This record gives sequence, C-alpha cells and structure tokens, in this order.
Amino acid sequence: MHRAVVLVSGGLDSATVLAMARQQGYACHALSFAYGQRHAVELEAAARVAKSLGAVEHRVAQIDLRLFGGSALTDEISVPKGRDMEAIGEGIPVTYVPARNTIFLSFALAWAEVLKAHDIFIGVNALDYSGYPDCRPEYIRAFETMANLATAYATEQGQRVTIHAPLIDLTKAEIIRQGTVLGVDYAQTLSCYDPTPDGKACGQCDSCTLRRKGFHDAHIPDPTPYQEAA
Amino acid sequence: MHRAVVLVSGGLDSATVLAMARQQGYACHALSFAYGQRHAVELEAAARVAKSLGAVEHRVAQIDLRLFGGSALTDEISVPKGRDMEAIGEGIPVTYVPARNTIFLSFALAWAEVLKAHDIFIGVNALDYSGYPDCRPEYIRAFETMANLATAYATEQGQRVTIHAPLIDLTKAEIIRQGTVLGVDYAQTLSCYDPTPDGKACGQCDSCTLRRKGFHDAHIPDPTPYQEAA
Repeated sequence: MHRAVVLVSGGLDSATVLAMARQQGYACHALSFAYGQRHAVELEAAARVAKSLGAVEHRVAQIDLRLFGGSALTDEISVPKGRDMEAIGEGIPVTYVPARNTIFLSFALAWAEVLKAHDIFIGVNALDYSGYPDCRPEYIRAFETMANLATAYATEQGQRVTIHAPLIDLTKAEIIRQGTVLGVDYAQTLSCYDPTPDGKACGQCDSCTLRRKGFHDAHIPDPTPYQEAA
Repeated sequence: MHRAVVLVSGGLDSATVLAMARQQGYACHALSFAYGQRHAVELEAAARVAKSLGAVEHRVAQIDLRLFGGSALTDEISVPKGRDMEAIGEGIPVTYVPARNTIFLSFALAWAEVLKAHDIFIGVNALDYSGYPDCRPEYIRAFETMANLATAYATEQGQRVTIHAPLIDLTKAEIIRQGTVLGVDYAQTLSCYDPTPDGKACGQCDSCTLRRKGFHDAHIPDPTPYQEAA
C-alpha cells in the first residue's frame, strides 16, 4: 500500500481530498498546522476528519507564522464579513497568509521524505479563490519541480514526488458533490475564518459565503452548524 | 535602502553571506530557526553574528522538525566523527535534514513578502557538500521560480524575488578568504554538529573537518574554540 502525506486543515476542501486519496488506495498520513491562526478550533475539526476518513495517523506541526504577521488570519486585522461573490473574487484578500501553502507543502515534503512517500495531496482550489497566488496550477507544478530537486530520496532513487491537487479546477459545488459520494460528513468540517470557540461558523466571512453557495449550487443540504445570528 | 532576508545559522557560511549582503548595501533582516537541532548553542552564535555584522533585526522561528525525525541533527542517530574528505564526499550524510533548506527558504519567503523584500540570501555551498541535494544551483533556481509564482507581492507587482546563493560554487577556503576581507570574526561562528553546551567545537565531525581544512587551505589561522580532546 503506497503512502501519501495529505494536508488536512479541518475544512471542507481538504476533507474531500483525504477521501479521494483514501479511495485511490493510499495509506494516508494527515498533516495539520498550528500556525497561530485565530480559528484554532479548526484543528479539532482536522482531528475528527482524519479519524473518520481513515487516516493512518494525524500529526500537527507547530509553526508560529505570527512571527512575521501580514494576514487577517494571524494578525489583528479584521476578517471581512458579508461580501458578495464579486467582491470575494477581486484581488488578494486580507485573509491571505504570505507563503502559507509553500510552508505547508515544505513540511509535507519533509515528512514524505522520512516516510518514503512519493505522493502529497493538497486541497487547493483555483476557481473559487483566484485571489490566492499559491492556489494556481502553475504554482503547484513549480513546487513539484522544486521538490524533485530538493530531496535526497527523489534524487537518489529516481522516483518522482507528485503533488496532487485534485480540486484545483473544481467548483465548490463539484467538490461537495464528489465528497458526498465518497461519504464525507461535512458536518465534521469547519471552513469559517471567524468561528465561535465551540466551533460554530459565522456564516458571513468569505469562506462561509463560498461554502454556503457551494451547498446551494450542489442542491445538497448544508449541515454546517452556524451561529444563530448568521 | 533595499531590504533583504538573510538566513543566518550561526555557522561560518551564513555569517559570510550576511557580510556580503551588507556590503552590497542591503538592510538585512536575519532569520534563524529553532528546529529541534541538538546543537542549540548555534542560535547564540547566530545572534552574535547578526548583531556584529549589522543586521537590522534578528528573528528566530520555532519549528520542530523532530516531529518527523529522519536526521542525526534532530534524532538520536549518532553524528559521524573522524571521517576523511573522501568519506565526507560520498553520498548523502546522516546529518541531512529532509527538506530543511526548502522549509527555511519558505519561511524566508513569507517574511520577505511581509517586508516587501525582493531579495533572500542563503549560504548553501555545492562544492564542499555535494551530498545535500538542496545545496545545488538547480535546486536554488527551481525554488526561485516557485517563489515567484507563490507570492502575492511578486505576482501583483511584477517585481521578481531573487534567491541569492553567493557561496554556491566557492570552496571553503575561498569563503573564508572573502569573509576575512569583509571583516567577519569567525571566532563568533559555530559550525560543529556536536558542540559542548558552552559552544566549543568537537573538531571531528564532518562540519569541523571541512572548516579546519578551509582555514588550512586559506592560510588563515583558525580561531575556532575547540574542545581540548580535539
């Protein structure tokens, strides 16, 4: 059984990716990050998701990106609320964390090398979030090229590392449909940028807006626990 | 004055790189890592080096690579001692830390984006350490390509990020000669993989062997404080 490292945030996208990797027969090693995010309850969601979708193990890397600042997810910048799809699609959002996917994939690569795993899965999505440069296909390909030059196991043994981004050109509705077929329980996942301490979604940040629209467009009931006001 | 992020380990190579970046007129933001390395006194050396060579600031990112294991520098694997140059040059050493430079450069990139710095300096060296895949020029170029696709500031503003690796094809002796001209006090630096708690070098690990040979070949007295036995 081939091993894979799967980045699992606790959100809807990465849960779907974990289900896809399991369906392809990989023994999945789930990796999450405590990176100083304000919404740390997402790590509890990540642990639930990893367990229920059959990951072999789940590890949490402690990295404090607050050291550098520069994002609404780690700084005291406000998370925007109530924006429509047009506003969400414009430019790079304040929730962008500088080089986050690069850091996450670098840790995944380190673990993959130790495990001798040649497959890394990440739930980036270019359609719904065109504002994040590190969610684009050309970025993923460039990381993969670099990864194959960076590591001893890929260099010596000549077996390439592949970065799988199976959601990259799917809409949120398509992701939800595919995950539902694979048995993902989306009630376990948390996408919200500003949840309550007990894990209820705000319903109004960009991530909640995209998620709600996804369930609506997929004609699948949204099982997300929202705050009452939302 | 242009800003640069400079990776400073406390060793001989990165101290030389910091001196080079300062000479080129950059305002240097020095970055070190507490990565679970057994030789944590190198962080004290990094702080000395950053201060004495005029870095604007010095930050230490906490990342625990022991989470994954796989290296003599973070695990309970023994650091090899007393190997000759031929043995050092063969294959990938047990002191190799999986994807370390990729993780270090990823953090440097995150900080560079927050600072709007388009220049990152790293002291990798392909000649003395051909066994590390992430010290080769093709790796550095691949990281640079990826970095320019990964970040919002490089993508939106069209100003490329450059990864400077000015030591990449220098011998250790050439590095020491150039650093000496630039005023680097190598007594402040620590290269040893297995130093005493008060920062004395063992004199026998691969890193000490390369360093000693470098001073010898450069005809410059070696100011390194070695343990008495060495």
